[in-house]
Amino acid sequence: MDLNADLGEGFGIWRLGDDEALLDLITSANVACGFHGGDPSTMRRVCAAAAGRGVAVGAQVGYRDLAGFGRRHIAYGFGDLRDETTYQLGALDAFCRAYRTRVRYLKPHGALYHAVSADESQAAALIAAIDDYDRDLPVLCAPGSVLAQLATGAGLRVIAEGFADRGYLPNGTLVPRTAPGALVTDPEQVAARAVRMATEQTVVAVDGTVVPCPVESICLHGDTPGAVASAELVRAALLDAGVTLTPFA
Amino acid sequence: MDLNADLGEGFGIWRLGDDEALLDLITSANVACGFHGGDPSTMRRVCAAAAGRGVAVGAQVGYRDLAGFGRRHIAYGFGDLRDETTYQLGALDAFCRAYRTRVRYLKPHGALYHAVSADESQAAALIAAIDDYDRDLPVLCAPGSVLAQLATGAGLRVIAEGFADRGYLPNGTLVPRTAPGALVTDPEQVAARAVRMATEQTVVAVDGTVVPCPVESICLHGDTPGAVASAELVRAALLDAGVTLTPFA
Amino acid sequence: MDLNADLGEGFGIWRLGDDEALLDLITSANVACGFHGGDPSTMRRVCAAAAGRGVAVGAQVGYRDLAGFGRRHIAYGFGDLRDETTYQLGALDAFCRAYRTRVRYLKPHGALYHAVSADESQAAALIAAIDDYDRDLPVLCAPGSVLAQLATGAGLRVIAEGFADRGYLPNGTLVPRTAPGALVTDPEQVAARAVRMATEQTVVAVDGTVVPCPVESICLHGDTPGAVASAELVRAALLDAGVTLTPFA
Amino acid sequence: MDLNADLGEGFGIWRLGDDEALLDLITSANVACGFHGGDPSTMRRVCAAAAGRGVAVGAQVGYRDLAGFGRRHIAYGFGDLRDETTYQLGALDAFCRAYRTRVRYLKPHGALYHAVSADESQAAALIAAIDDYDRDLPVLCAPGSVLAQLATGAGLRVIAEGFADRGYLPNGTLVPRTAPGALVTDPEQVAARAVRMATEQTVVAVDGTVVPCPVESICLHGDTPGAVASAELVRAALLDAGVTLTPFA
Repeated sequence: MDLNADLGEGFGIWRLGDDEALLDLITSANVACGFHGGDPSTMRRVCAAAAGRGVAVGAQVGYRDLAGFGRRHIAYGFGDLRDETTYQLGALDAFCRAYRTRVRYLKPHGALYHAVSADESQAAALIAAIDDYDRDLPVLCAPGSVLAQLATGAGLRVIAEGFADRGYLPNGTLVPRTAPGALVTDPEQVAARAVRMATEQTVVAVDGTVVPCPVESICLHGDTPGAVASAELVRAALLDAGVTLTPFA
Repeated sequence: MDLNADLGEGFGIWRLGDDEALLDLITSANVACGFHGGDPSTMRRVCAAAAGRGVAVGAQVGYRDLAGFGRRHIAYGFGDLRDETTYQLGALDAFCRAYRTRVRYLKPHGALYHAVSADESQAAALIAAIDDYDRDLPVLCAPGSVLAQLATGAGLRVIAEGFADRGYLPNGTLVPRTAPGALVTDPEQVAARAVRMATEQTVVAVDGTVVPCPVESICLHGDTPGAVASAELVRAALLDAGVTLTPFA
Repeated sequence: MDLNADLGEGFGIWRLGDDEALLDLITSANVACGFHGGDPSTMRRVCAAAAGRGVAVGAQVGYRDLAGFGRRHIAYGFGDLRDETTYQLGALDAFCRAYRTRVRYLKPHGALYHAVSADESQAAALIAAIDDYDRDLPVLCAPGSVLAQLATGAGLRVIAEGFADRGYLPNGTLVPRTAPGALVTDPEQVAARAVRMATEQTVVAVDGTVVPCPVESICLHGDTPGAVASAELVRAALLDAGVTLTPFA
Repeated sequence: MDLNADLGEGFGIWRLGDDEALLDLITSANVACGFHGGDPSTMRRVCAAAAGRGVAVGAQVGYRDLAGFGRRHIAYGFGDLRDETTYQLGALDAFCRAYRTRVRYLKPHGALYHAVSADESQAAALIAAIDDYDRDLPVLCAPGSVLAQLATGAGLRVIAEGFADRGYLPNGTLVPRTAPGALVTDPEQVAARAVRMATEQTVVAVDGTVVPCPVESICLHGDTPGAVASAELVRAALLDAGVTLTPFA
């Protein structure tokens, strides 16, 4: 099983999350590329630290919206989104090269992540960027999303990710953030859910039913209070359960 | 002889210069990388057009200053400038790859060009970025500049460029922009100076003396009225004189 | 009748439209405030020129999106949009004060203009900003829009504007840009429609019917080829028809 | 005596310093205006909180450099700096108006603060902006700086500020940050120096001599570890010594 988390999401003097602590826990780092967060020196620092630990680096591409941290939907046209994605991929890869590694995958951030769950044009823009840059790059995204479908159709590798700290509906999708049961806040329960995802490929939905959850990576959140402690617990529980933690890429 | 010009310096809806016309005249395109000007879709368009014509693409890296178009000196520290340069190199290279070519050289823009004539820290930052990214990338810059000296010392290839439309002092450096004779405005004279640079490797200085001007590339300006017509004249004069025009890279 | 146009929409080195020419033709200048376009020195220049000619200055507020020129919808929350609007109002007003005048009205730009035709939250954000800043500021917008309704309900003055170069449906709304008849391109016809709007408060819809068009301002476009010539024709036709041109504010 | 501190220096999702805690300790808030830090919603929040506590709001104007937090010198021309200052003044004032107060003074930030200590053109740009906007606005700056001199010459009110946590040279200027004795880190000592500044208008220089320090405001730093605790100690010590704390404006 792979553990991924968002890293390098500060900008200039501003910091967000504890990159160093998370890098000791995860196997794949979704590194911000400067559009919703992240700056070149942060990108270098995270790539260096990831390379030194054998953590895979992925391009966490986002909308060009520092003020909104990429969390507001923007009605990008296909070409602009494709080109900004290519730009971000290349920029991050330059820092990976400096530490003798490469960008290993792409994961969309924030509002873009949500958009490409359903928006064919924006999903196709991400695929077109990968197509141009390196067709061997997998896409890390929500199973069943439009992005996953289009990527599969285009012959790209798709890595489905699960969220141990989010509630699931019986149909295997996430409980919307505004609905009851959206968040699982008890760290022990989060860890137990992660173990279930890793060992049984299932999740207990909000109605108590056990539903399939065939994921290759589990996403850990790093920018909330207690995030690092919770991530430590998830990692320890997985190792205790005999799960091998290794980058998917 | 190589002919270079700055291209892709619009941003979003805004345009600057006539990229298409210049691409038919030059052999090397200094493509803006999004920090002082340029945006991802413009970068793609220029890279595609350059690749289609056999024009070499270089990274025209600049300060992060859209409002000032990279023309104001900024007191960057070494690390930030190195990392922003690496970032720009990688971003542009991604578009080159999409058209099966590569970034072929680096040229600093505007205030950064001037800064690295004399500032060791900023010059060293550019060299460090090349060192990380691809040590085979030549640096296109002013002969005798600190950047040229440090790059040579670091074992990088240095391409000296000349300016047929600028006055020269007897010591081979440019007449400062505020001094008399800084600009050569007569297109016929500009073309004649380009031919002299290409065939004799000399230039007539403001005091009438003929001084050495050992350059491998001549820079054409594209964003002034009459720029394209002047560039056409230079190109025609060089071809008439039997000079072969080909990218240095 | 009032004639309004978008002005000051360049940024830094980049220019858009012919501000000087339009200022001689219009009575109200919608001045960009730096978020979708416009920069402080441009704002000062336009405010100075407008004040000198007795042209009223309005705040053309837009999304924070230089790369997209404010033409892409952004899913702003209420508070962020209200606060960015307040910010833009204050910034522009500072330049007006320097030339002993004031911001006289607010007009949303681009994708924001379209959004507030239907989106209650974004429309309410603009109204909240006006409410904070200066309740005497009228809103210049499309008649029948949600913004117009909410502004009227809030006790603000609403100025309805018409487009002499756009086709109208029999219900008095604009023909969508992608439908046949969306644009009226013949300058003589544009001028004639402007005169009809000013003198009869009607417009000939795409189906030939004459429908009410009770507007207090006509919007002239400035950033297309032939824009200035067309604007001159509209102005001349209105004056010929005995229409008095004067700012609504 | 007045106590001032920098506030509202986050941007979007990113936070810096503890605005709420400082607002209970200071009498004047230097509010970032969006160019080096700060965003419209933060500006509103800080203005509201300051107005509610009777804390005076000043415009902390900075270079347009979010990536560098306004801490890198930029070679602005006079006009651009004047106009960006006017813009920032107006933007902040809009939020003050919303809470029935006004911008009460101007203080330059970071590299601009340092630049206007010696650079006549940049200092004159700030004065020109005040001249345009509101000649009653005092300038909060270092005593003896070029800005102080030019502002006095222009008939503006100048408020000299002191730094209780910085070392002073016998000539009354600050010990450069790179020299020994630049920082006073012991909170008790910082508080004692603040009391001396407030009650005797003197400071003990690094060589032990007592030198005049005629300041009307003491600057507290808010973005370092222990900053709030140190500020609390300074405030308490001043009150204990019978010093009245009140905004200068």
